[in-house]
Amino acid sequence: MSSDIEIARAAHLLPMRDIAAKLAIPEEALEPFGKTKAKISGEFIANVQSRPKGRLILVTAINPTPAGEGKTTTTVGLGDGLSRIGKKTAICLREPSLGPCFGVKGGAAGGGKAQVVPMEDINLHFTGDFHAITSAHNLLAALIDNHLHWGNALGLDPQRIAFRRVMDMNDRALRAIVTGLGGRANGITREAGFDITVASEVMAILCLATDLDDLQRRLGDIVAGTRTDRSPVTARDLGADGAMTVLLRQAFQPNLVQTLEHTPAFVHGGPFANIAHGCNSVVATQTALRLADYVVTEAGFGADLGAEKFFDIKCRKAGLEPAAVVLVATVRALKMNGGIAKADLSHENVAAVEAGLCNLGRHIENLRQFGVPVVVALNHFTSDTDAEIAAITAYCRNLGVEAILATHWAEGSKGAEALANKVVELAEGGSARFEPLYPDEMPLTDKIETVARKIYRAGPVSFDAAARRQLERWQESGYGHLPVCMAKTQYSFSANPALLGAPEGHTLPVREVRLSAGAGFIVAICGDIMTMPGLPRHPAALDIHLNADGQVEGLF
Amino acid sequence: MSSDIEIARAAHLLPMRDIAAKLAIPEEALEPFGKTKAKISGEFIANVQSRPKGRLILVTAINPTPAGEGKTTTTVGLGDGLSRIGKKTAICLREPSLGPCFGVKGGAAGGGKAQVVPMEDINLHFTGDFHAITSAHNLLAALIDNHLHWGNALGLDPQRIAFRRVMDMNDRALRAIVTGLGGRANGITREAGFDITVASEVMAILCLATDLDDLQRRLGDIVAGTRTDRSPVTARDLGADGAMTVLLRQAFQPNLVQTLEHTPAFVHGGPFANIAHGCNSVVATQTALRLADYVVTEAGFGADLGAEKFFDIKCRKAGLEPAAVVLVATVRALKMNGGIAKADLSHENVAAVEAGLCNLGRHIENLRQFGVPVVVALNHFTSDTDAEIAAITAYCRNLGVEAILATHWAEGSKGAEALANKVVELAEGGSARFEPLYPDEMPLTDKIETVARKIYRAGPVSFDAAARRQLERWQESGYGHLPVCMAKTQYSFSANPALLGAPEGHTLPVREVRLSAGAGFIVAICGDIMTMPGLPRHPAALDIHLNADGQVEGLF
Repeated sequence: MSSDIEIARAAHLLPMRDIAAKLAIPEEALEPFGKTKAKISGEFIANVQSRPKGRLILVTAINPTPAGEGKTTTTVGLGDGLSRIGKKTAICLREPSLGPCFGVKGGAAGGGKAQVVPMEDINLHFTGDFHAITSAHNLLAALIDNHLHWGNALGLDPQRIAFRRVMDMNDRALRAIVTGLGGRANGITREAGFDITVASEVMAILCLATDLDDLQRRLGDIVAGTRTDRSPVTARDLGADGAMTVLLRQAFQPNLVQTLEHTPAFVHGGPFANIAHGCNSVVATQTALRLADYVVTEAGFGADLGAEKFFDIKCRKAGLEPAAVVLVATVRALKMNGGIAKADLSHENVAAVEAGLCNLGRHIENLRQFGVPVVVALNHFTSDTDAEIAAITAYCRNLGVEAILATHWAEGSKGAEALANKVVELAEGGSARFEPLYPDEMPLTDKIETVARKIYRAGPVSFDAAARRQLERWQESGYGHLPVCMAKTQYSFSANPALLGAPEGHTLPVREVRLSAGAGFIVAICGDIMTMPGLPRHPAALDIHLNADGQVEGLF
Repeated sequence: MSSDIEIARAAHLLPMRDIAAKLAIPEEALEPFGKTKAKISGEFIANVQSRPKGRLILVTAINPTPAGEGKTTTTVGLGDGLSRIGKKTAICLREPSLGPCFGVKGGAAGGGKAQVVPMEDINLHFTGDFHAITSAHNLLAALIDNHLHWGNALGLDPQRIAFRRVMDMNDRALRAIVTGLGGRANGITREAGFDITVASEVMAILCLATDLDDLQRRLGDIVAGTRTDRSPVTARDLGADGAMTVLLRQAFQPNLVQTLEHTPAFVHGGPFANIAHGCNSVVATQTALRLADYVVTEAGFGADLGAEKFFDIKCRKAGLEPAAVVLVATVRALKMNGGIAKADLSHENVAAVEAGLCNLGRHIENLRQFGVPVVVALNHFTSDTDAEIAAITAYCRNLGVEAILATHWAEGSKGAEALANKVVELAEGGSARFEPLYPDEMPLTDKIETVARKIYRAGPVSFDAAARRQLERWQESGYGHLPVCMAKTQYSFSANPALLGAPEGHTLPVREVRLSAGAGFIVAICGDIMTMPGLPRHPAALDIHLNADGQVEGLF
């Protein structure tokens, strides 16, 4: 089969007005970006919000492994499959981050015959949303240092600045820096640092805000830092919220593209799934639900992080009620969870699959706690054997869940037809009784312990003393109603990336907590979390170039 | 009269296909960005380059003062004036930098009834070109530090890294920083810093490259730093040129917008006029010349910097031959050159005007050295008196130059009709015999001394010892044929911003020299030059916001 980029390049794309017409979006509501991307006008979005909602389907996965699970690919394949069986469908995805394209990752727009296109554009700059977020974020950062420089009337403690800078680039040298060197004219000297743009609170805010007023209110709520008495100084106090909103006004409008099979896809926003909630924008999902009968969306990383946050943060805050969940697994990833090395994944090994199935089983149990019916999508690889697949379907049947083989990567929508039919059966069966894991009024430390116990199956939660004190302080000062955003490794239910399968009784270390007051959650950092990636020894950038026909090579 | 933003907002914009049609650009060659901005396809641009060229008119100005001269306003007004008198006209402007919008400057898209629109979009993000330049620049920076981190196979000296990072933001705290702190995993610890994006060599390269191949070759030529033996390590050696080109592929296509009177305007690229050459892109100018009978463009700062570099760098390298030069002056700016404070400019003061006219006269003499006919445009302010204007026209007449009162700010094209007629007379008179100031083969130090003597009327040039040694080294290693890019204050012919009027015999200090091997020039830094601005005590950002109708307020 051809490579992803070859398939994407060979695709025949429909004009955006034809894609929009599938959702009855009039051409005048489209703001074109080139010929195959468009933003949807704010006016149109506001006007449709009173319409009835379609059905929301979440695609999530078992814990990610280096084998690759194909969550985005399955989201796209299922969307095309639903279109194929006659459902008016829209897909909602996160925008890929530009920085990692030049590291190890390559592109992030699905794969094989289940991709969103134009693939190169989506991976590189797209409609400029992440650049706008970077600008808005760094404007606040500049205003903070400028305020310190010009006399610090608000009394910010220069050693308690909570707001770092961001760049959409993998650049380890910027993680920890000292700024303001070189004399008085260059401002206050202090420790600082950069995160990657997807880790920006502004990104999380853009993805949770309901309209421009809400966006500005949330931006204003960002805590820039504190005074020596620990009282917060916000972006509003610094006068930054208006200009930040202006910088984000266009980025806030959802982007519309298409799949290879011309299913409309909203690709909008892309917060990290560790220190943020890892879902595409609320405004894209809410709009898609008003335009389509079925909306297929995905959450970042595995279900322990992505689905939990999708339910407890995004659905809770936006009033969304998912109708069904698709849990993606692969034979290869289950074998890795069963202890097999990546190099040995291509040999049949039913015992290894069976040893790894506990990971799948744990996710199924977890998802059921949220009251939403589950189907397992077995994303097919050519090396999978019938015996391996049979082991998985039998295991799932025992748990009362159907596992459906999906071959959309190789076959497009045809390969996802069975999955689509099952999703419709579950969604229209009306069995969903969505409920988040914990109520708003539960104290912050209890919320963390609830996620640790019910989702991670941890034993004790070990709070760093400073983190516990900080949580108590926030509880007292009115932030106790916020949900918690857990930041831990995506590779394990525990905080130890090497603990695969279904560990339990492990200790969950809460090393640090951060307040994202604008986004509206408390981040609990469990173990080592990297908010600015580095480039590998041989970065993908070295192989990315334009070929003689002016096409992009090296994005894969 | 209404404010600039009110006028811009009230404007009736034509669809881009109608603007393109004025230059016979077919609709399929347009890549829309929203409804009132478009990029021109690379294929169309390549196809028109063999056509005959129209006439190129440069708009430059006396030394800038806090009073404002209105160079962009006059460029737009003259373009509309030429359209009005029946000439097929295109305007070529630089893109404004986003960072300074939040400082003191506000927008930069002309003023009054002589503006390019959509004004807010042009000032904020526009079509994303500067963000793409920032990404491409910072990708190389990340690859440099990544190379050091992973063993430094090329033997770069970490203390001789010549390439800084960039951000499109006024952020003084980033001028001088230390990166790579926090332990081994965060890379090599070293001194580093950020410039504003317009100061990036990548910006200068994008504006001087002729096509994508030339762009990649120039990007590859960027000197990232040197080894301990002073041999250069280039972006090509680091493998960065391919990915940088991919990031810039769309940014390289010129942007088309319109004036308030619907004259087509290419707004593309925006290098600093101090450490870079300060002109819009060569590809925009070359394309406009193939599509229009008249192309009106501007150069940064005053004629001593902007026009000299336009002639000696852009025209020399791109083979352009300007047909006429418009030198913009105002009564107010001449009074400031005559020693009057900004607060006292509104009172009639013919003596002050006369005292300041030596600045205008010096620029006229200088421009004539390039063999291009000159007309003075007196950009009218309501406080100007007849006696003041008469003093200027008389002075110019004595020098054999016509000074024409232009009222485009208040009246649009009607106010620039006389100016347009004069420009046509000069351009079609055929008197232009363009020649750059010095030949390619002149040694680098002599080039600097030639500009200092002939344009700045300096006495001695005082080279810092290290700068002189460096120039000799570059002369020996094959860079001697490059033009020089002078970086000095824009406020004076000298390196001292307080020396207004027409100083002579002053010493020009060449403090530092930099090699922009990709852009293709040697930068000579004379005095203090700021490559990363700071924000003022009360930044414009504090007043920028969306109003109740969702319109941008505070950009002026």
